[in-house]
Amino acid sequence: MPITTCVFDAYGTLFDVAAAARQAAAEPDFPQLQGTWATLAANWRQKQIQYTWLRAVTGAHTDFWEVTQNGLDWSLEAAGLAGDDALRERLLALYWELQAYPEVPAMLTALKEAGFNTAILSNGSPGMLEGCVQSAGVGAVLDDLLSVESVGVFKPHSSVYDLVGKRFDCASSEVLFVSSNGWDAAAASGYGFETVWVNRAGEPMDRLPWTPQHVLNDLTTIPDIAKG
Amino acid sequence: MPITTCVFDAYGTLFDVAAAARQAAAEPDFPQLQGTWATLAANWRQKQIQYTWLRAVTGAHTDFWEVTQNGLDWSLEAAGLAGDDALRERLLALYWELQAYPEVPAMLTALKEAGFNTAILSNGSPGMLEGCVQSAGVGAVLDDLLSVESVGVFKPHSSVYDLVGKRFDCASSEVLFVSSNGWDAAAASGYGFETVWVNRAGEPMDRLPWTPQHVLNDLTTIPDIAKG
Repeated sequence: MPITTCVFDAYGTLFDVAAAARQAAAEPDFPQLQGTWATLAANWRQKQIQYTWLRAVTGAHTDFWEVTQNGLDWSLEAAGLAGDDALRERLLALYWELQAYPEVPAMLTALKEAGFNTAILSNGSPGMLEGCVQSAGVGAVLDDLLSVESVGVFKPHSSVYDLVGKRFDCASSEVLFVSSNGWDAAAASGYGFETVWVNRAGEPMDRLPWTPQHVLNDLTTIPDIAKG
Repeated sequence: MPITTCVFDAYGTLFDVAAAARQAAAEPDFPQLQGTWATLAANWRQKQIQYTWLRAVTGAHTDFWEVTQNGLDWSLEAAGLAGDDALRERLLALYWELQAYPEVPAMLTALKEAGFNTAILSNGSPGMLEGCVQSAGVGAVLDDLLSVESVGVFKPHSSVYDLVGKRFDCASSEVLFVSSNGWDAAAASGYGFETVWVNRAGEPMDRLPWTPQHVLNDLTTIPDIAKG
């Protein structure tokens, strides 16, 4: 079946999750991030994602804004910065308006001009997603922002991937799903989507029971892949 | 209720998961591990655990020996050592006979002499657990080795913690559960066990909805905690 619908993970895929710590480190108020921001950003992301998986396994769902704060608090403590409330507030504010990767607007515009359905499918809460989409100015080229909040469990639970077919009334084989998270792309392959793993960092492929069909360094050629 | 039953996580808690890579690095056959073994061991552990969570969320269970190999293969590739079959085989053989932490035999012996039930509750397959227990010589002071294989899902799914009450016919409040994995200790607290987090590395506490009651640097004082 030809692809009709292109669906993107948000954090790490369209939006650069390291941007919050990198940007704060460039501001004069936060010299404590000099030399530490990259580790802080990596720990923040790792703990945030770990907590989503652990909550999915135990059925203890909460919204992504809470686990984002939980991950940050762990990471600030690990960096010796627990209790630095000004830094914490600034990082959280920046997370609400993360930078999109530079190729994102043109890529999404090309998909819309070619007639594809376009959407985000994300762990993020609706408010977080609206914040990033607005800040990146890509709201007009996305048909919908699908959040796990409507099913109450995080990725990669299959209920999350179900949201796409329900919203666009399409078969899983008509969906091109794009994620920078290898595990997300892999699980979406297992679900039945055609998938792209955007592997900007050149990491090894995760050893899971499913394999993404495409591996790219960035998002530039997504419209070509969608057209088949 | 007084504690009647002391249950231990295996990997990282009784057995040192970094021992395989550290020991291989000390052998003349594997100079490629000089300066790299600690990162290899950390990646191996991290990917192994990630894959258990992802398989638990998606219902794609397999046994722990497979995810142990999957995690190692990712880590060997990340270290530029993919295809080094002699090293791979040696690391896997060492994982089957991991060293116990030095205080383990005396601690378990003290618990048995005081009349407590003792057991392992682990993601490990029965064969893996028997291998490590035999190698550490602690089989006589453990009443049972409980493996997730009997329920077909990894920690921290509640079905795993259910195994303890079923085996020892005891209430969850009679169980002291000990893990070096903060998320395992936290989830077991949520389940209703009294819990100890063995935090050898001095890491920040995980920000999850549950908190372990005790935090220790090693296992030495477990018998005192069990006696209350």
